Amino acid sequence: MIRLSSYVQDQWVEGSGTPAVLVNPSTEEEVASTSTEGIDMAAALAHARDVGGPALRAMTFAQRGELLKQMANALHEYREELLDIAEKNNGGTRGDAKFDVDGATGTLASYARLGEKLGDQEFLTDGKVTRLSRARFVAHHVRMPRPGAAVHINAFNFPAWGTFEKVAVSILAGMPVITKPATATSWLAWRMSQIIVDADILPKGAYTFICGSSGDLLDHLGAHDTLAFTGSADTGGFLRGKDPFIKGSTPVNIEADSLNAAVFGPKADPGSDLWYLAVRNIVKDMTQKTGQKCTAVRRILVPEAWADALCEAIAEDLSRVIVGNTADKTVTMGPVATANQLKDVRAGIDRLAQQTTIVCGGSDPVSGIGAPDGKGFYVAPTLLRAESSEAAPDVHNHEVFGPCATVIPYNGEPEEAARIVALGGGSLVSATYTDDRKWLKAFLWGAAPWNGRVLACTAKVADETFPPGMVLPNCLHGGPGRAGGGEELGGLRGLEFYTQRVAIQGDSGILGKILGIPAE
Amino acid sequence: MIRLSSYVQDQWVEGSGTPAVLVNPSTEEEVASTSTEGIDMAAALAHARDVGGPALRAMTFAQRGELLKQMANALHEYREELLDIAEKNNGGTRGDAKFDVDGATGTLASYARLGEKLGDQEFLTDGKVTRLSRARFVAHHVRMPRPGAAVHINAFNFPAWGTFEKVAVSILAGMPVITKPATATSWLAWRMSQIIVDADILPKGAYTFICGSSGDLLDHLGAHDTLAFTGSADTGGFLRGKDPFIKGSTPVNIEADSLNAAVFGPKADPGSDLWYLAVRNIVKDMTQKTGQKCTAVRRILVPEAWADALCEAIAEDLSRVIVGNTADKTVTMGPVATANQLKDVRAGIDRLAQQTTIVCGGSDPVSGIGAPDGKGFYVAPTLLRAESSEAAPDVHNHEVFGPCATVIPYNGEPEEAARIVALGGGSLVSATYTDDRKWLKAFLWGAAPWNGRVLACTAKVADETFPPGMVLPNCLHGGPGRAGGGEELGGLRGLEFYTQRVAIQGDSGILGKILGIPAE
Repeated sequence: MIRLSSYVQDQWVEGSGTPAVLVNPSTEEEVASTSTEGIDMAAALAHARDVGGPALRAMTFAQRGELLKQMANALHEYREELLDIAEKNNGGTRGDAKFDVDGATGTLASYARLGEKLGDQEFLTDGKVTRLSRARFVAHHVRMPRPGAAVHINAFNFPAWGTFEKVAVSILAGMPVITKPATATSWLAWRMSQIIVDADILPKGAYTFICGSSGDLLDHLGAHDTLAFTGSADTGGFLRGKDPFIKGSTPVNIEADSLNAAVFGPKADPGSDLWYLAVRNIVKDMTQKTGQKCTAVRRILVPEAWADALCEAIAEDLSRVIVGNTADKTVTMGPVATANQLKDVRAGIDRLAQQTTIVCGGSDPVSGIGAPDGKGFYVAPTLLRAESSEAAPDVHNHEVFGPCATVIPYNGEPEEAARIVALGGGSLVSATYTDDRKWLKAFLWGAAPWNGRVLACTAKVADETFPPGMVLPNCLHGGPGRAGGGEELGGLRGLEFYTQRVAIQGDSGILGKILGIPAE
Repeated sequence: MIRLSSYVQDQWVEGSGTPAVLVNPSTEEEVASTSTEGIDMAAALAHARDVGGPALRAMTFAQRGELLKQMANALHEYREELLDIAEKNNGGTRGDAKFDVDGATGTLASYARLGEKLGDQEFLTDGKVTRLSRARFVAHHVRMPRPGAAVHINAFNFPAWGTFEKVAVSILAGMPVITKPATATSWLAWRMSQIIVDADILPKGAYTFICGSSGDLLDHLGAHDTLAFTGSADTGGFLRGKDPFIKGSTPVNIEADSLNAAVFGPKADPGSDLWYLAVRNIVKDMTQKTGQKCTAVRRILVPEAWADALCEAIAEDLSRVIVGNTADKTVTMGPVATANQLKDVRAGIDRLAQQTTIVCGGSDPVSGIGAPDGKGFYVAPTLLRAESSEAAPDVHNHEVFGPCATVIPYNGEPEEAARIVALGGGSLVSATYTDDRKWLKAFLWGAAPWNGRVLACTAKVADETFPPGMVLPNCLHGGPGRAGGGEELGGLRGLEFYTQRVAIQGDSGILGKILGIPAE
């Protein structure tokens, strides 16, 4: 059993007291332990703020981008080792591990390129110059790095990608990072942090890694520190209730629950290219990472006449899924990540099953192929079917964070599809499958603002699209309402959260020279 | 005594129960009363959301801009009556009333022009198209109006401008408005609402006016409703702690306390043009609206050698201020707005005076010229002087919301000035007075992110600049930390809060046609 540690004030430290124990979800074997007890979180925060912040702010975007590039390269060298760790602690298949690890290096590389493109700038300009008089009086709007520390609290499902997509954006923006992975799957993030630190890439104070409980860290946040949280809506709500966010105005960005929808529209008839694309995407999203993706599809809206055929098609694909210990290479879907998750997923399936019928799967205990008897957090890929959107209200307000989705027949009208999507109270992503332009427009006008992202799959781009569960560094990730109301990534958009927008008013000539913006 | 009412579900209604009473702050005479008891706030919200929202979202920006233009014109017709009401209820001079009322119509007109410029668009595009494949797969980022209601809670100091700057931005964005002025000075906002309603400009459900307590309105807010609040940090913190903002993700924008700074740099020597500009601006900000402007200067940083001369110059100008009943046209500064404000301002002066010396003014009771004996909420324009930034910690954390500011000598270095500005924990605006480019750059690098706006006064634009207390519709208004962390106005930037940003991914040709964006 390996002992993990935290990187605080530019030193590796082990917490005291009884450690939290990490297990292999495929076997329940204990694999690592960690504790943060006794770590001075206020001092960690002050060090990031006072040492890391000034160092990063003194660099240009190109220089900060170069840091990200070096990080991506350093991590890529250890790819095989990282995939092994993921397999032993995260419960996913090799493919799931690649999705997570390559997502991390890919996002670092993407923001590295953005930094290179921004070049010698030290801060961002925001729009064109605003004339305030007929002569020389103007305003420049700029975005300057917040002079604080960026705290990241990540979810258990993406210890690699979740950590480094946030790191990439914060560092490029010019803010030092304090990052905390979910304890249960923190081994991978710890090893990646070790690689980054050993490679000696970042300036002192720019990177702090908390492996275990964050203790009283958040209580010390100030006006220009930030919190970016990915996890459950309940935990998000709890964090957001803390004093710095309520009495102070510390910015907080939350990415939480989401009842993402896939919607069949006209011309996605059974047997059509769009139909097969949709089924393929749905099954992928349901089973990849054992359905533990915040962007995975939970609600499948289909015209009534096609509902039987769709349930059959999805169930058939799901029947070929091999659930088990991911050390066994024939396995195509691993366990969920923790005992608690297993409990929650089973209870969630039971809850939804009260208002729906089970097409396949269900909450019964499952033996994993190649797992010790009775061990491992396995659950069957589960398809449910609602009679209608109204017959199953919980389908729109309870996220089952596992390989589970519900087919909801509807009347095929775009306004009705949009209404049902909105019942989810705000989602990360919806996908449509239709070539009908009029239908799509009506759907978007109603449904788009209830999402952070909409993937409109048409026959013409069927070969080019990614599944809707795929988060890209150059597209916005986040969503309103239940999804947390946050915004991440989206290229430069992601930097907004880590910067303060300021209107600087004055003489066009002098300001232009100081800010490096040519006078109009 | 006039009875005020609320405009709810497209009807004027009077609340029941014991009403709140509004007074003339110059005389303490009772002038109006209002109550919202018994008004169904949930129904008011649902009506705005379900009737007003769809109507506004069906319009183009040009059409919504036209609504704003008509509102500005309707209000302007009644300008003299509105100035009279302001004088009777708000405690300001005629000039103060104009600042408020003309600010309202000016902001409406400014956003009307913006709408005209945006033309036939129904929503905003956000950046250029993002290529996701080598062929046709792209993402458009757009901002669509939030399908909810925009709730505004405004401060007592700007019943006209505060109400209609927020109305202008929300309506142009495509969101129906529920607006609540501070009860104490709500007469003016009520009359303006009456004018708007009588002119029959807005679609049904687009405008709701709550005159008095907002009752349980905020408890009913959903994912796409919004709250924009201007007022004290304490009240802001109280509101932000409510369930919709914590457990839900209802967007909230707060504009709160601010310890704005004016900073003398090199070349603003006593007797220079910049010196006189600074003194003029400082005295204007201290006395306009009796210092009750969120953007008014509270901290005046001056190189040690000039501190005596500066105190003398400001005090001399303040000695010419005539405090009294604003019905008397010789009066140049009215009372503060309420008995509570008077109490708070006096207590605040006492608190700061414990760590500073009083140059002029103070917390002693003041008789207003032309006011009934012992009546009216008068306070003397008060200049304090700290020995140093460290000697008076309260100067950086306690806002006295009245005609009071403190001179703070410092060593003249830009880094030190920036450090002292940051002690305020986040401000709406700072002003600098210097022609030294190197000094200004160093100051901006340190201080800009602690402000929402910086006004850099130089000799070249001395004749063109407005005082820093002036908020312009095309420049950002808001600030980090203590100032609430919000953003208002700034032209199109103000619309961001009232819109949901969405990444729409799909075929470049089809999406371009649907969204009205030409394919690249």
